[in-house]
Amino acid sequence: MTDFLRSNVRKMPGYTPGEQPRDGEYTKLNTNENPYPPSPRVFEAIGQATTGDRLRKYPDPLGHHFRTAAARVLGVDPDAILIGNGSDEILTMITRAVVPDGGLVLAPTPSYLLYRTLAEIQGAAYQEIPFTPDWQLDPAAVPRHTALTFLSNPNSPSGTTLPVDQLANWPSPLVIDEAYVDFAVDNGLRLIGANAKILVTRSLSKSYALAGIRFGFAVGSPQVIRQLYKVKDSYNCDVLSLAAATAAIEDQEHMRANRGRILATRARMTADLRRLGFAVTDSHANFVWCRRERPIKPVYEELKNRKILVRYMNYPNYGDGLRISVGSDPEIDRLLDELAKIV
Amino acid sequence: MTDFLRSNVRKMPGYTPGEQPRDGEYTKLNTNENPYPPSPRVFEAIGQATTGDRLRKYPDPLGHHFRTAAARVLGVDPDAILIGNGSDEILTMITRAVVPDGGLVLAPTPSYLLYRTLAEIQGAAYQEIPFTPDWQLDPAAVPRHTALTFLSNPNSPSGTTLPVDQLANWPSPLVIDEAYVDFAVDNGLRLIGANAKILVTRSLSKSYALAGIRFGFAVGSPQVIRQLYKVKDSYNCDVLSLAAATAAIEDQEHMRANRGRILATRARMTADLRRLGFAVTDSHANFVWCRRERPIKPVYEELKNRKILVRYMNYPNYGDGLRISVGSDPEIDRLLDELAKIV
Repeated sequence: MTDFLRSNVRKMPGYTPGEQPRDGEYTKLNTNENPYPPSPRVFEAIGQATTGDRLRKYPDPLGHHFRTAAARVLGVDPDAILIGNGSDEILTMITRAVVPDGGLVLAPTPSYLLYRTLAEIQGAAYQEIPFTPDWQLDPAAVPRHTALTFLSNPNSPSGTTLPVDQLANWPSPLVIDEAYVDFAVDNGLRLIGANAKILVTRSLSKSYALAGIRFGFAVGSPQVIRQLYKVKDSYNCDVLSLAAATAAIEDQEHMRANRGRILATRARMTADLRRLGFAVTDSHANFVWCRRERPIKPVYEELKNRKILVRYMNYPNYGDGLRISVGSDPEIDRLLDELAKIV
Repeated sequence: MTDFLRSNVRKMPGYTPGEQPRDGEYTKLNTNENPYPPSPRVFEAIGQATTGDRLRKYPDPLGHHFRTAAARVLGVDPDAILIGNGSDEILTMITRAVVPDGGLVLAPTPSYLLYRTLAEIQGAAYQEIPFTPDWQLDPAAVPRHTALTFLSNPNSPSGTTLPVDQLANWPSPLVIDEAYVDFAVDNGLRLIGANAKILVTRSLSKSYALAGIRFGFAVGSPQVIRQLYKVKDSYNCDVLSLAAATAAIEDQEHMRANRGRILATRARMTADLRRLGFAVTDSHANFVWCRRERPIKPVYEELKNRKILVRYMNYPNYGDGLRISVGSDPEIDRLLDELAKIV
């Protein structure tokens, strides 16, 4: 009955949504949502966008206001920006525009699992390069002829970064996925001007606390961005998300204040988790990666029994660990209290 | 600089957004927006979804509430419904899941121009079957071995319909694009159960007056829909559009009342446009298709000078015409007044 669908799609494992309990009784530290609300300006902007005839009319297909605001904040050309319905959609668009049937998609491992999915949907080959033990990449391990490389920087689940300047001459078209970059020290925007084969992608889900809104964008050379607009659904961003995203990126003060609180919590939770016996990688993101010699899956399960959700990850040829989002201070206090009883 | 992009994408013409003036000084009859506001429940639902921590948390990836509500309204299984960021995204997902590299995509002409674009992005071949003069399809003209056929029913720009029961045994996988179906008499939902190769797509942009929100869905066999979820971005519909779409589809009374007003306006504008000398096709959608022997493009241009936007379309091997949305009664009065001065 489904044999008219492409075999690469039929072969993919069925869709398993992440744990998103709607009942509010869980402490959610599993999907790297921001524990603090978005800018008050976001709520105002949504209110305004809900008035008059805005809902019944099509949105601006090019997102002029957002691009102008983001360009000013980031110091880039508005024509260097592609708007997307979440940075996942941006990654989808880039894959469709760049990767031919049977082409090779490359990404490190352990990293974001979506890269493999995008390759599979596109009918592409997928190759993983293992990170070195200190979460770097061995240049000798990088194949030179690939259609597209995805580097999550900072990386998930490790929270580690690759030095940006080492990526400037990457041998193939490169997406630097900077969903978590606002929690790090450096970013890749300065590479765009010199190398048109590099694209930087950003999300408003994490640092701007807008996971519910679905907004992301890419920054690249205007010539390349113009090509990517061809594969975009005409009206991919709705009036409310455009209004919310524009208001959010214009309120840098709000974003920086929340980032400051998150970085402070990250520092103390890293120290406390280490005191509890976990090996915790130094993080440049809004989560930390915890491992230990003894089995760690029971810790995930025991936390879930106690209504705390963290993310258990297990990677082939690497092993497992817990990726724990940096929540609010009361949430992290609760996590540490329960962990002290478990470990 | 762009040669790392796929050649099928580079060969596509550059993106030209439709005319969406934001200044409010135009009478917009060019993009088939609903002239009446969405249900009051939509505004309430957006207000509620903007409270608490809804914006900072990820939305429900499967759209449970919407699917339950839509299934009840349409009399189908919730598992038969795929949610999308506008029905354009639904058409994109189906194309990616069904059409292989080099596969053949089929659609009638004149029809919705997006079908060709989707085929081109996918690296597929595209074939058009011309409508007969009375806007039907000659079965002998339909090739049997195609990866996917798109039929817009009602069709744009003509507003005409194909008899639904004649589509039941279409020789290839078939998308019946029912973006305008709420303005017609019949629909294709009854075909789904008997033929798993048929998918029906719907939009909330037109009959539910939510073009700004971006929400559409597909109805198909649950086995097929389950496969299509694999190619969906996990969180493709945001919390506000899910809330708005659910509220809108639950308020059938509001939709039907607006539909009634639009059908009444459509009837009298058809008669009046005919009196003004246009050949107007009987429409089953929220627009009418007008042609005439003398050149019609000057009418479009003269209307634009007078701040009325209609859609001028010109199709190879067919010719041109004006697609005019059914606006509110004052908008149509204004159109008819100005046309009387022009023609």
